[in-house]
Amino acid sequence: MTAPRPATRADLPAVLALLADEERVVDPASVVVGAAYERAFASIEADPRNEVLVLDDGDVVVGCLQITYIPGLGKGGAERALVEAVRVRADRRGGGFGRLLLEGAVARARARGCALVQLTSDKRRTDAHRFYASLGFARSHDGFKLTLQTS
Amino acid sequence: MTAPRPATRADLPAVLALLADEERVVDPASVVVGAAYERAFASIEADPRNEVLVLDDGDVVVGCLQITYIPGLGKGGAERALVEAVRVRADRRGGGFGRLLLEGAVARARARGCALVQLTSDKRRTDAHRFYASLGFARSHDGFKLTLQTS
Repeated sequence: MTAPRPATRADLPAVLALLADEERVVDPASVVVGAAYERAFASIEADPRNEVLVLDDGDVVVGCLQITYIPGLGKGGAERALVEAVRVRADRRGGGFGRLLLEGAVARARARGCALVQLTSDKRRTDAHRFYASLGFARSHDGFKLTLQTS
Repeated sequence: MTAPRPATRADLPAVLALLADEERVVDPASVVVGAAYERAFASIEADPRNEVLVLDDGDVVVGCLQITYIPGLGKGGAERALVEAVRVRADRRGGGFGRLLLEGAVARARARGCALVQLTSDKRRTDAHRFYASLGFARSHDGFKLTLQTS
């Protein structure tokens, strides 16, 4: 186990497999990377305020998340870090990979001078809520979503 | 009343006054714009994925919010819009300005092709929660924050 690292284009099938993996492992070799995802990944790579991190276990990508660094006019003008799309491979959960991922994200946000790290978690995911609380996160807000289009 | 518009540098004192205004109006003329806020505003203006919107009532800025457009690898590769720092001047609340602000933000996100709009609201702000629900937002998530530094 190591710290998470920024994803490269070569990791894209593995990341898309993780995002499609709800309860069952998706084989990255089975993933066809569509043009929209190529463009989205290129956008993230080119944006100095967005990064996808992946966590390796040997030669297997076992987890991922995305960080967006948001400039703002509160908090003394400091950025805040938003964490989205946290995933650990279904067959590797409970092994401490999620903690490594989040600790890596927090360390990067801290090194960058962010005032805070924020994320939302589905209200039904009470296991995830205990996990975030154990990392020091306060469950202080409610998260609202308005869907504009379905993919 | 009109639709919200992107803030310019000239609006910065009014926006900072709104952000400092919890329950009592802060006079924009009393705001000294520090260098960190100048830099933060310049960062937002220069970033094609961030914008601050303001709402005018005559020659008074009565509300503001910030939108961050987040590229991602879910939702068919579409962006999502994050709304932060929603404020309506303390002496203008209840006049429909919040609704105009949020409807303006949603319209901009929709025109840009975002898959969804998301925001978080302090769990104690039950009045705000009813407001967001009335706009069609689902309170589906819990919002977690980890403070790294205080301003």
